[in-house]
Amino acid sequence: MTTWCRFKTAGKTSYGIVEGDTVFAVEGTPFGEHKRTAQSYPLASVKLDIPVRPETFYCVGINYKDHILKMAKKRGVAPSFPPKPDIGYRTNNALIAHDEDIVKPADAGDAFQYEGELVAVFGKRCRNVSKEEALDYVLGWTIGNDVSERGWQKIDRTLWRAKNSDTFKPMGPWIVTGLNPDDMETVIRVNGRETDRFKTNNMIFDAPTYISEVSKYCTIEPGDVMWMGTDGVPENIKPGDVCEIEISGIGTLRNKVVQG
Amino acid sequence: MTTWCRFKTAGKTSYGIVEGDTVFAVEGTPFGEHKRTAQSYPLASVKLDIPVRPETFYCVGINYKDHILKMAKKRGVAPSFPPKPDIGYRTNNALIAHDEDIVKPADAGDAFQYEGELVAVFGKRCRNVSKEEALDYVLGWTIGNDVSERGWQKIDRTLWRAKNSDTFKPMGPWIVTGLNPDDMETVIRVNGRETDRFKTNNMIFDAPTYISEVSKYCTIEPGDVMWMGTDGVPENIKPGDVCEIEISGIGTLRNKVVQG
Repeated sequence: MTTWCRFKTAGKTSYGIVEGDTVFAVEGTPFGEHKRTAQSYPLASVKLDIPVRPETFYCVGINYKDHILKMAKKRGVAPSFPPKPDIGYRTNNALIAHDEDIVKPADAGDAFQYEGELVAVFGKRCRNVSKEEALDYVLGWTIGNDVSERGWQKIDRTLWRAKNSDTFKPMGPWIVTGLNPDDMETVIRVNGRETDRFKTNNMIFDAPTYISEVSKYCTIEPGDVMWMGTDGVPENIKPGDVCEIEISGIGTLRNKVVQG
Repeated sequence: MTTWCRFKTAGKTSYGIVEGDTVFAVEGTPFGEHKRTAQSYPLASVKLDIPVRPETFYCVGINYKDHILKMAKKRGVAPSFPPKPDIGYRTNNALIAHDEDIVKPADAGDAFQYEGELVAVFGKRCRNVSKEEALDYVLGWTIGNDVSERGWQKIDRTLWRAKNSDTFKPMGPWIVTGLNPDDMETVIRVNGRETDRFKTNNMIFDAPTYISEVSKYCTIEPGDVMWMGTDGVPENIKPGDVCEIEISGIGTLRNKVVQG
């Protein structure tokens, strides 16, 4: 089990390995050749960056039974379950790191919500892999907050600004290897108050299923990420709120909302 | 007017400036500092690569009135015009260069089609720009073929494999600066036979409108691309076919279809 972070110090961005309260700088990246150095920093002294800037940013739209049932009830419509694992996408302009601010645009409505998601980070190029071997291509796991403006999500033809406006995609704090998705629980807190708690892998189509299916048509590259969807019924967040997403074994992704 | 290509020779990929039948190698990229060198190659001797690998790959879904009218008639439904410029996305795994092969997947159906599109390539970071200044952020123009599997486009929840399977996004042959989109005509040929011809800028929402609107919410980076949609009613293409998209002032993007 290794905790890979990407961090800034003295104006330079490097990968590092986190051990306790210390970051050991690494030459290279976890996606290719790399060498741990003797250079270390107190974790509290460095600025964490997003753990990777993906070539392709995959994201699962709707992937938890309970989320579908509860959201349908809230909207007063019949629940509709996805018949197969059709992947979607998000974009890099929206990525921000742990502890960076989510900027709520001036014209965004009140239905401005978090979505706490498990994120698979790929370590190897992957094409046409079976479900059984899919996780061999995953370097490790991190956490994503799929921030969404529900008004725009309803009225736009695509998800572009509803989910891909600048700062709408917090990801981090780091990547942890060697974890079993079946052992994880996701807990979401707003201003310290727990708003959702769910078994992380209680998915309709799990990561191996999605990876295998996507890889039938698309080459997944090292450093690509796949966000796995959220459960529960997200609450609105507003400027001043602090949103935390904790996934057991990984850590906590924390971001404050500010007014744009 | 400069023609920027990206090319491979002796195992190395570089940017170059095309003049007539000659490529002059450039140190650096058109998106940052660069210096034209004295090193030159016959254009016919180098392998053209995609002119850029974007950070974010923007693509306009439906953007020509005539395309909407004719496609609606073909499908026997009422035409529906987009009320505002909502941008979509494609993915880098699907990109291939001029003269590389479009691989039709073994399970793809007969409704496998080209879409000839004008592509804006950004040269400068761009946020919150007006329509009037939008084109100042465009380095130049290239050509895209938004290859689409219509069966998957109908049955999947997203456009993932219908439009983003490996090799489904030919882009090239190069980027030409200093062009006026109003002066361009797009001509599409399959095996040398002209199948479509349209005024390139006969768009519902033109590039400045899309760029200005996207930049209200999203930071567009140097090297990002925006594909502007297609006109006409695309025909099916099948293994063995050669598809050419010519846009006046830019050149011709040519790709053969092969069986996957």
